[in-house]
Amino acid sequence: MTRISDTSREARFDLLAAEEPLEIRVGGRSLAVTMRTPGNDYELAAGFLVTEGLVSGADEIASITYCTGPEKQEYNVLDVVLAAGVAPPSATAARPFLTTSSCGLCGKASIDTVRSKSRFDVAADPLRVAATVVCELPGRLREAQKVFERTGGLHAAGLFDAQGNLLCVREDVGRHNAFDKVIGWAALEGRLPLAGHVILASGRASFELTQKALMAGIPVLASVSAPSTLAVEMAEEAGMTLVGFLRGQAMNVYTGEHRVST
Amino acid sequence: MTRISDTSREARFDLLAAEEPLEIRVGGRSLAVTMRTPGNDYELAAGFLVTEGLVSGADEIASITYCTGPEKQEYNVLDVVLAAGVAPPSATAARPFLTTSSCGLCGKASIDTVRSKSRFDVAADPLRVAATVVCELPGRLREAQKVFERTGGLHAAGLFDAQGNLLCVREDVGRHNAFDKVIGWAALEGRLPLAGHVILASGRASFELTQKALMAGIPVLASVSAPSTLAVEMAEEAGMTLVGFLRGQAMNVYTGEHRVST
Repeated sequence: MTRISDTSREARFDLLAAEEPLEIRVGGRSLAVTMRTPGNDYELAAGFLVTEGLVSGADEIASITYCTGPEKQEYNVLDVVLAAGVAPPSATAARPFLTTSSCGLCGKASIDTVRSKSRFDVAADPLRVAATVVCELPGRLREAQKVFERTGGLHAAGLFDAQGNLLCVREDVGRHNAFDKVIGWAALEGRLPLAGHVILASGRASFELTQKALMAGIPVLASVSAPSTLAVEMAEEAGMTLVGFLRGQAMNVYTGEHRVST
Repeated sequence: MTRISDTSREARFDLLAAEEPLEIRVGGRSLAVTMRTPGNDYELAAGFLVTEGLVSGADEIASITYCTGPEKQEYNVLDVVLAAGVAPPSATAARPFLTTSSCGLCGKASIDTVRSKSRFDVAADPLRVAATVVCELPGRLREAQKVFERTGGLHAAGLFDAQGNLLCVREDVGRHNAFDKVIGWAALEGRLPLAGHVILASGRASFELTQKALMAGIPVLASVSAPSTLAVEMAEEAGMTLVGFLRGQAMNVYTGEHRVST
């Protein structure tokens, strides 16, 4: 990544939180796919089954194993077998997302799914934004947030043009909803695709937010916090500019740094 | 709520971010239910359809209206009609959650669904925790988080006993996953229900986290940030203690304040 401050621009290494999909299958059928940090996957599956009300404890789970097929194992698919007598989840309990029939579910598959769905190409977007303009965006977003200061519990998304003018700000208890509201505003205004625009997230840049920006044709996604590995990979593949840790007079540019001019 | 600091304990009013379910129907069929902050709902629906790749702009949407049935309207159900010639979402695109056949979807319905699923009763849990112990939990969680300090992008959940001993800490890019990992750890250890325990979230207390704590039988949910309205309502109905803004030597106790002793 490229660290840009008001006095320098230099290449640096950064350690990111890993994000990969995990598909949970029960009795051979896909129940859910969640984006997660790999590790403690058996716990994640068991906890998901408990908190969804499908089992009440480990005695109702016969086994949890990684998918064992002939293909390359990505350790992103878990097979759960319930104990004898435990009712399987109903067909309507399944949460369809990208699901696979093989063991090879990986972040790349998630990225490919989004890329094939997107009707807009951001890679060729000629947008250039001055670093000094980018640094002003968080302050402008905060100014526009009236509720946040009072409740402290809302995520925000702000849409800006290349000159840093705030076009739309929306808040929500869910980060993904704040993004959907901004993009929905643009859709209803007939402004899609959002070529030449910057979207700013008040929190972390996840795979999901990167996906939403791409689906709306936005070439620059900025966030005041850290991106995940999969968000960076997605942005890289899509030719999107991904800015993180945008604070004060500095930022980390993870992909597409040519769009941030100094 | 009750504001507890090292020198005082007093009743106060607090403004919370609203959280309510929104069901999005397309062509009369339920497509998704999301927990959101009410407001800009048409934009949220339009943005969701765009970012899911179902439409590419407003010209593919014929109308968005609130559900118009004979029942009491809660303004939490939207009917979307796609433009002529636009393919409806596939049956597998639907994301089943609690869905209703009426227009009356409300937060109360969400709470009732969770309450009826939970096998554990936290209301009668006799746990008492000293406020001084509660104030130490965030520091203990942070100490136990090694990755967080380096990547800045991970949410954490910590499980504590009544004396403030940290039993399990898990991190994830998703807050819900961090909770599921902790609860799954307990399930696999044969420790459910988690009566007499406290779970701490590194972020905000949402409806979803409150639901997960209830499903695991945890009587005290603490968070360093703000809860949502629906999280507070859920905790109130379940007889759970909900602590927010746990920072330094002070906290806000929104429900079940009898469990925090001073």
